[in-house]
Amino acid sequence: METKNILINNVTLLGSEIKRGSVLIENDKIMDVTEKNGQKDADIVINGEKKVLSPGLVNTHTHLSMSLLRGLADDLPLDTWLNDHIWPVEANLTGEYCYAGALLACVEMIKSGTTTFNDMYFFMDHVAKAVDEAGLRGMLSHGMIDLGDEEKRKGEFKETLRIIEKCHDTAEGRIKVAFGPHAPYTCSEELLKEVREKAGKMGLKIHIHVSETEFEVQQVTEAHGARPFEYLDEIGFLSDDVLAAHAVWLSDKEIEIIKENEVSLSHNPASNMKLASGISPVSKLIDAGVNVSLGTDGAASNNDLDMIEEIKIATLLQKVNKMDPTVLPAEKAFEMATINGARALGFQDVIGTIEMGKKADLVLFDMKAPHLTPFRHPKSHLIYAAKGSDVNTVICNGEILMQNRELKSLDETEVITLAENAAEELLSKA
Amino acid sequence: METKNILINNVTLLGSEIKRGSVLIENDKIMDVTEKNGQKDADIVINGEKKVLSPGLVNTHTHLSMSLLRGLADDLPLDTWLNDHIWPVEANLTGEYCYAGALLACVEMIKSGTTTFNDMYFFMDHVAKAVDEAGLRGMLSHGMIDLGDEEKRKGEFKETLRIIEKCHDTAEGRIKVAFGPHAPYTCSEELLKEVREKAGKMGLKIHIHVSETEFEVQQVTEAHGARPFEYLDEIGFLSDDVLAAHAVWLSDKEIEIIKENEVSLSHNPASNMKLASGISPVSKLIDAGVNVSLGTDGAASNNDLDMIEEIKIATLLQKVNKMDPTVLPAEKAFEMATINGARALGFQDVIGTIEMGKKADLVLFDMKAPHLTPFRHPKSHLIYAAKGSDVNTVICNGEILMQNRELKSLDETEVITLAENAAEELLSKA
Repeated sequence: METKNILINNVTLLGSEIKRGSVLIENDKIMDVTEKNGQKDADIVINGEKKVLSPGLVNTHTHLSMSLLRGLADDLPLDTWLNDHIWPVEANLTGEYCYAGALLACVEMIKSGTTTFNDMYFFMDHVAKAVDEAGLRGMLSHGMIDLGDEEKRKGEFKETLRIIEKCHDTAEGRIKVAFGPHAPYTCSEELLKEVREKAGKMGLKIHIHVSETEFEVQQVTEAHGARPFEYLDEIGFLSDDVLAAHAVWLSDKEIEIIKENEVSLSHNPASNMKLASGISPVSKLIDAGVNVSLGTDGAASNNDLDMIEEIKIATLLQKVNKMDPTVLPAEKAFEMATINGARALGFQDVIGTIEMGKKADLVLFDMKAPHLTPFRHPKSHLIYAAKGSDVNTVICNGEILMQNRELKSLDETEVITLAENAAEELLSKA
Repeated sequence: METKNILINNVTLLGSEIKRGSVLIENDKIMDVTEKNGQKDADIVINGEKKVLSPGLVNTHTHLSMSLLRGLADDLPLDTWLNDHIWPVEANLTGEYCYAGALLACVEMIKSGTTTFNDMYFFMDHVAKAVDEAGLRGMLSHGMIDLGDEEKRKGEFKETLRIIEKCHDTAEGRIKVAFGPHAPYTCSEELLKEVREKAGKMGLKIHIHVSETEFEVQQVTEAHGARPFEYLDEIGFLSDDVLAAHAVWLSDKEIEIIKENEVSLSHNPASNMKLASGISPVSKLIDAGVNVSLGTDGAASNNDLDMIEEIKIATLLQKVNKMDPTVLPAEKAFEMATINGARALGFQDVIGTIEMGKKADLVLFDMKAPHLTPFRHPKSHLIYAAKGSDVNTVICNGEILMQNRELKSLDETEVITLAENAAEELLSKA
């Protein structure tokens, strides 16, 4: 393979020990980060003047294909939303619809600076196809639900193993597969234990929803005589390969359990607010040493996949919830969306910072905008004033996926048309 | 004056009784709103296909010139932020700096769909100059603070009357001036009573901060033996011409007082969250029949002036605070940012909806974007998924201020440079 170089010169860096300088990319990797401006004989030279280069954002909990259900139903209680709107539509899903929704989500993520995500849904081989084409990095899991039914359980493992076999470590290593037991209240103890055992043997991650709503905590407590994380700890489910999404309702004992087992969390503030699920004690968790990352959840409950917006909401929500403006400062919020996300997925040595030897997953923000003027405090601006639309150029695995807001890996208009048509068909069936 | 027509055809309408059709603008006014597509012989014809036309957004509490202080200091307690960072810089303000900051803010507002705002700050004739040039509609007030000092009080009235004389009802009627007593804890009873009397006689609005922080409520209660709105009611200050910003800390009795006196409120969720001031009981206020509008506050505590973001944060915050996803639904949140804002400024017959005879203050959103696909639920998308950057075209008072995201009234690059230089100079003095 011929070597390909990209040089980003004269740029302000975040997520790097060097604050200003140049970054040299060779093939899929960051080869150099220096305070000097590099030589101009790279294949592609990008002028970083008045721009900020950040590690690609990491969205650690989402359901890409649900983008087709965006705006389908809002302002409703969770059970009405699920029973009357989401589930009837999901009953008619096919691989083709999931592919179209995932492709749409990939375009949205690229355009708002996300290069890595963690997805749980159905027809995940079709999702993998979209991710491969988009050029993004993703961890995919088939959402397993057995509700105690053995036949269902067998089916879920069969599908999960099929997806692992077909998709794990494909697309130049950009796609990994994880186990995706949906939640402690939708999965039997048998399922959870079997996931635990298989994930350990196969060296795969586990992606699960835990304690999103107070009602769910009651359900689990009634069924098992223990709160969700206590129960998961008792059955030996928890370990550093588990990424739990939401974690809104936590006792102090559960925070200890999370910390001791080195479980990573994915905080989803916009979705938790919109569905009125509650406020996760994020600043307390971070103070306790828990690795808290950030996710958007699906577009049906957010209603977008914009991590820049999610970062701002996350920090603002913690401040007002704790009645303390110093909690979750810009620096910590930025880490949640980058290195903490990488760590949650086990990718901390691969992505999440701008460092020599790591994969070239990078996002260039254009700071020449009225809402980012005066250009004096790059990290503050990124957290509190920037928008997803300020993302100018996106590089993932050394490939330019967008440059000057023009997509390179996908045709935006074609994807929008494909998704409109898929949504039209799917929603007409419900 | 020659008649000038703009026709927007084939567009989805929000804030209008007609859901889809065309809008004809003649000079500064909306001349027709119809379900049919209009004739194509207007001077300018805009194709509204896959676009949404909304009344211009109304930002009812901001400090435009503080844009120069964006990102100056974050994640700090209010007193440190003010005493150590904001006030030392403000001590060096001049009319030129305020003009530069206001012009920058105008560019930001136009680019994110705000056509009307309510501003309180200093050197307001310089702010008026910026607003005139930008083509926006604004209510301006000199922020009056006397701290009980009679000399200061006289000075504040002198400046306020100078601004009224010089700026009220200028710029083709786009600029109005209001009285701007800063707050019950920074203004003496004498000042407040004199404002009340003069505003009544002159038929001008009053713009004031009330009950932003719990500490301020304590201060007022200690000083006057009554909570802020009780105190203001007792001294006869409250009436339907008063717009109170923040209103975070309210007793039930105060909510009644606000309602009875027909005081309008400006809710500023992002600033209240960022400074950890608290959560205003907005859904309760709306249920009680209070007119609650929406504001961004200044860019130093937000850190932007993006009303589209503010709407989403407002509704999400109420839902999670009340633990009820049905509160402040999209429809109500949209009204807060449009007609409620118009009403708060006394402009309800002039702007705030798309209706024949009203001023042509209109914003066209481009819905052909991945995060707005599928394009099925325009109001839901505008509240929960759209971004300020989806604003395509902005019309204020019948003038096109931006078309296809290109500014018409101002040169964006020039304004950014002016503001960068002004910030550089100003901040080097502190």
